[in-house]
Amino acid sequence: MERYKELIEARIAGWCAALPDSGLYAPMAYLMDLPAKRVRPALVLMGSELFGGRAEHAIDEAIGVELFHNFTLMHDDIMDQAPLRRGRPTVHAKWGVNTAILSGDAMLVKAYQLVGRYPEVHTAFSRCALEVCEGQQLDMDFERRDDVRVDEYMEMIRLKTAVLLSCALRIGAIVAGAAEEGQERIAAFGEHLGLAFQLRDDVLDAFGDPAKTGKQQGGDLRAGKKTFLLIRGLERAAENRTGILHEELMKRPEERDVPRMLGLLETLGVRAEAEAKVTQEERAAVDALDAIDVPAERKEPLRGLMTLLGSRAH
Amino acid sequence: MERYKELIEARIAGWCAALPDSGLYAPMAYLMDLPAKRVRPALVLMGSELFGGRAEHAIDEAIGVELFHNFTLMHDDIMDQAPLRRGRPTVHAKWGVNTAILSGDAMLVKAYQLVGRYPEVHTAFSRCALEVCEGQQLDMDFERRDDVRVDEYMEMIRLKTAVLLSCALRIGAIVAGAAEEGQERIAAFGEHLGLAFQLRDDVLDAFGDPAKTGKQQGGDLRAGKKTFLLIRGLERAAENRTGILHEELMKRPEERDVPRMLGLLETLGVRAEAEAKVTQEERAAVDALDAIDVPAERKEPLRGLMTLLGSRAH
Repeated sequence: MERYKELIEARIAGWCAALPDSGLYAPMAYLMDLPAKRVRPALVLMGSELFGGRAEHAIDEAIGVELFHNFTLMHDDIMDQAPLRRGRPTVHAKWGVNTAILSGDAMLVKAYQLVGRYPEVHTAFSRCALEVCEGQQLDMDFERRDDVRVDEYMEMIRLKTAVLLSCALRIGAIVAGAAEEGQERIAAFGEHLGLAFQLRDDVLDAFGDPAKTGKQQGGDLRAGKKTFLLIRGLERAAENRTGILHEELMKRPEERDVPRMLGLLETLGVRAEAEAKVTQEERAAVDALDAIDVPAERKEPLRGLMTLLGSRAH
Repeated sequence: MERYKELIEARIAGWCAALPDSGLYAPMAYLMDLPAKRVRPALVLMGSELFGGRAEHAIDEAIGVELFHNFTLMHDDIMDQAPLRRGRPTVHAKWGVNTAILSGDAMLVKAYQLVGRYPEVHTAFSRCALEVCEGQQLDMDFERRDDVRVDEYMEMIRLKTAVLLSCALRIGAIVAGAAEEGQERIAAFGEHLGLAFQLRDDVLDAFGDPAKTGKQQGGDLRAGKKTFLLIRGLERAAENRTGILHEELMKRPEERDVPRMLGLLETLGVRAEAEAKVTQEERAAVDALDAIDVPAERKEPLRGLMTLLGSRAH
């Protein structure tokens, strides 16, 4: 990852430095300059190298994908009324909602400028961008609903998180000239990886070691956020005729007994179920990667990334 | 215009009918379905026919440009907190700000899907989209400033209004396979046309015949909106050491003596100056059109459009 990150950070720094000095562009540079893991652009470069391309050749598309991701953060933060992003004030908190809307719009255009070299990339990117919007719409819809099913939740995280990871890899593959079959397989790998990633996030938020995650256990549960654990927990609780989870959710967030909720999710087998689902998605990802017809050593960076993501505690 | 409008309306109706049934897409169909003149998509088709292309062949790009225009309306209406658009509730008034942000984002992506066939179109469209955002940013900046100069105002309306008309024509020209020189000339025609259009809007708002415009004279002045007339009026008033305009602007909007302000703008020669500027931009547009090396009869629709826009009273 380090090699990719250096290349990406250098290019982002150059990109930011070349922006016009205006109120429209300053928020883009601010957001892109916040410390970030750069997973998505790294996936573009990895996808390209997997099929024999050079990372440098796909760097424009990689930065385009990272710009798109940051555009979604800028607008999502308005919708969520989030005051902080990566520990710093959000764009709308710093410059106002109007500038955050407009600067985000321009950021999406800037992303398109970087993914426009190949028509196939343009097509894949547009489809993915719509799916990410659909995922965000579902996420907002879910906030107002009490009957969200597990399959709906899985579809939401697929759209909101997994398809962009998948698309990043596919774009890298397209730039490297990969055949359709290879594109499909690396995209499938990315989608399973993304689902595993998001589900593991849900589990870590609830059961992660606070010493490693750096936050209190159960933040999502305290907020009543509809994650896999809560949705599946409510289903299992209904089957088991226990009203404990409902009872806690009826309370005000600060009064919820989170350890009690966590204990119940363990007892009901929901934690185990979520962990099994993570493993299942990881296996599906490995299978998709195995099936790709390229020399085994080229797959090493992606296997390394899986291990890295699989061992993370935050 | 009628021929173009029929083609455009039919294609928009089909486009709306094909949208997925979801909360993300409904606002797009709603906005696209409101009665509109469809000037921008017509310009794409006219630009294409001017260089010997078939209108049907550029219809995707034409709809893409209209989608982009409506995306800017959806987001501008949020920023302006406008309750009504074309006499109907705005998208954010009907569905909430969050949906209007997100649906607008997806609408921009949908626009890109329609302008992605030719790399040259993609490039021109992206550059134009950024300029439109820059124009909107300037417009918002001007609201908080008391020292806006005429040249700054001209640059704002160029970016916010004229470049999209210009780009629509250029896109049509590109689709028809026009050479670079022809593209530049038709784009110049569109930019001058756009400036004339916006300046005439300023003049009509102030001095238009209420029987024809259907609204009271001086709406912009009453609101204290910084148009060419107000900005130039303040400059000329300062030169003439009269404080009348400032005096009226210090009052609350509903207490401003608009006939007095209009009278002063006449006396100071600002109305005449604005009308001279409209004529100047129209002449520059005609010159650009004349210089294009195609059979004269192909220019007739664009000359007709100029006459139509030049004779409008609203």
